[in-house]
Amino acid sequence: MKKESTFTPWEVKGEINYEKLIKDFGTSQIDEKIKKKIQKLHPLLSRGIYFSHRDFDKWLDAYASGKKISVLTGRGPSEKMHLGHLVPFLVAKSLQDEFKCDVFIPISDDEKFYVKENLTYENAIKFGEENILDIIALGFKPGKTFIFQDFIYTDIYKYAARIAKRMTYSTAKATFGLKPENNIGWSFYPAMQAAHILFPQFEKGKHMTVVPVGIDQDPFIRLTRDIAEHKDFNFMKPAALHAKFIPSLYGETKMSSSDSENSVIYLSDSPAEVKNKINKYAFSGGKATIEEHRKYGGDTNVDVAFQYLRIFFEPDDKKLAQIEKDYKSGKLLTGELKKILIDKINNFLAEHKKRKEQAKKDLNKFLYKR
Amino acid sequence: MKKESTFTPWEVKGEINYEKLIKDFGTSQIDEKIKKKIQKLHPLLSRGIYFSHRDFDKWLDAYASGKKISVLTGRGPSEKMHLGHLVPFLVAKSLQDEFKCDVFIPISDDEKFYVKENLTYENAIKFGEENILDIIALGFKPGKTFIFQDFIYTDIYKYAARIAKRMTYSTAKATFGLKPENNIGWSFYPAMQAAHILFPQFEKGKHMTVVPVGIDQDPFIRLTRDIAEHKDFNFMKPAALHAKFIPSLYGETKMSSSDSENSVIYLSDSPAEVKNKINKYAFSGGKATIEEHRKYGGDTNVDVAFQYLRIFFEPDDKKLAQIEKDYKSGKLLTGELKKILIDKINNFLAEHKKRKEQAKKDLNKFLYKR
Repeated sequence: MKKESTFTPWEVKGEINYEKLIKDFGTSQIDEKIKKKIQKLHPLLSRGIYFSHRDFDKWLDAYASGKKISVLTGRGPSEKMHLGHLVPFLVAKSLQDEFKCDVFIPISDDEKFYVKENLTYENAIKFGEENILDIIALGFKPGKTFIFQDFIYTDIYKYAARIAKRMTYSTAKATFGLKPENNIGWSFYPAMQAAHILFPQFEKGKHMTVVPVGIDQDPFIRLTRDIAEHKDFNFMKPAALHAKFIPSLYGETKMSSSDSENSVIYLSDSPAEVKNKINKYAFSGGKATIEEHRKYGGDTNVDVAFQYLRIFFEPDDKKLAQIEKDYKSGKLLTGELKKILIDKINNFLAEHKKRKEQAKKDLNKFLYKR
Repeated sequence: MKKESTFTPWEVKGEINYEKLIKDFGTSQIDEKIKKKIQKLHPLLSRGIYFSHRDFDKWLDAYASGKKISVLTGRGPSEKMHLGHLVPFLVAKSLQDEFKCDVFIPISDDEKFYVKENLTYENAIKFGEENILDIIALGFKPGKTFIFQDFIYTDIYKYAARIAKRMTYSTAKATFGLKPENNIGWSFYPAMQAAHILFPQFEKGKHMTVVPVGIDQDPFIRLTRDIAEHKDFNFMKPAALHAKFIPSLYGETKMSSSDSENSVIYLSDSPAEVKNKINKYAFSGGKATIEEHRKYGGDTNVDVAFQYLRIFFEPDDKKLAQIEKDYKSGKLLTGELKKILIDKINNFLAEHKKRKEQAKKDLNKFLYKR
């Protein structure tokens, strides 16, 4: 029996046929031609986590011809961030490093407040403030990175209003799946989100912006692209980079803490928690017994520990290939593979904690002011 | 044949049965008991233009027991203001004079921008700035009067968002007559309007606010009253004062420049324009010939010139009674009655122009800052 598959911007379940999505959405593959234009290709790009795009070639061309370019990626704040949340920021940072471009990071505390019935206004803001520190800790450049929260930098309402005027309720309803019983903040949010995506152009004039997002979020990009060229704005259509989903520890299609706290690694997890979660919950591609494993080898395609090394923690292609080879051959046992990952994660998190402390001091350099 | 009557917050036509509205809406009459509690009763109140209320007695009681009270009345800015627009502000000012209370005046440039297809963002702001000067010129007290525009004082979004979370699209749709083809700014605006009405309590803590409005706007007051006591806010239900409609020069139920420029007197009209409009367009209760008029007298109930004296320009009850008597008896001719009004309007507008010039200098004393 085939796994049942759900695919909307609100819910992703089951197996995803990414090739088919490129066709269905009318996006383009991130091909060799594009990859060659980037000197230091981030593993998320070279290894195909980011697999699809819209107009990213034009963004690269704009850079090549000396034009202004920027990167935008936002975040709906949550109590604590997990590894999956880092994906767009890691790519944004690597683009900033190579192309020396501005990165804009809107924090949609309002979105989370509208959508989560029990999230208070105060906590929405607090979570945003907390998440901003985690984001800064990833190494963005002060002076070229502009972060704001909707409930603090309320001037964003001016831009949202101008977009709202050009977006009917029917359109927003169709794209965002709005229901009559949803609150009217929720139904306004599509305008706010488009205002975020177009913010670099509102503030810095017409230019190419690229937005790294999960492929499930592409309908929002399309909606914003439709609006960008309206005569009220006369902006460039924003480009997009589309990521595949990052599996949860359980091996589910999309990492999400709404399922279980044990299915994700939080940036705040202690070394012991990381060790316990990986050992206990990370779905293994190994065989049932050591004997069998030695004989038949493990399956790296489904092994979550291996996937996390591939996506996040082993940037060296040769080392990764060696691990893959050893695991497939049965030389490397599941416990050993997990140990490699646990050490890598805990090193990363220890560093991250330090950088987050530093971020508290640097915060003001990153908060957007006109 | 009876005149066809339309009555929604968006359209008012035909004859209105105000007694029935009080019953239908479940509001209270402004009775003698209430009038006695006010020392200097503004003609708009004493003469029954304001005829209905919600909890205005509680507002007066709060004042009597030394509690904080405030007045709120807003404006959706238009290119130029006409006499009809002054009604709520005149009452607000007289309440401020007597009760020494704060008056809050939100200017909903965003509302007009959402609703008027051809109104640009820049003009919405510009009209707001212009209207603010006309409002200040009415004589509000600096230091106790707080004016803001949504597109300038964008922090209002914080309050609108908190209300938006507690208002479903269905509710907003029912109260504001939203259609799927309306833009999502429009569908968000009900939250913004409630945020305006509750603004005094958001900023200055729980207390009684009274809102002078046209009776057709009562559904919005009701919606806000429902929300005020939600546990998220724990505010007092705002009180309301309901006005009847001010007839247009043509004698139509509600003065509105959307019908014709000649049906209203603008604050910017020249003396010659005023003279021409009143003489040419003001619907007369006089008879067809001087002879008939002398014999049968005029009808002050339908005569627009007399109504404008009653509503706006002859505060002296004795003088007004004399005019009424003379007109009804046929002693005063239509041309003479109109002449009285023309002189009164032109005196008022000449003074208004001066005070508006002064308002430009005083502007900063009135713009709300936290």
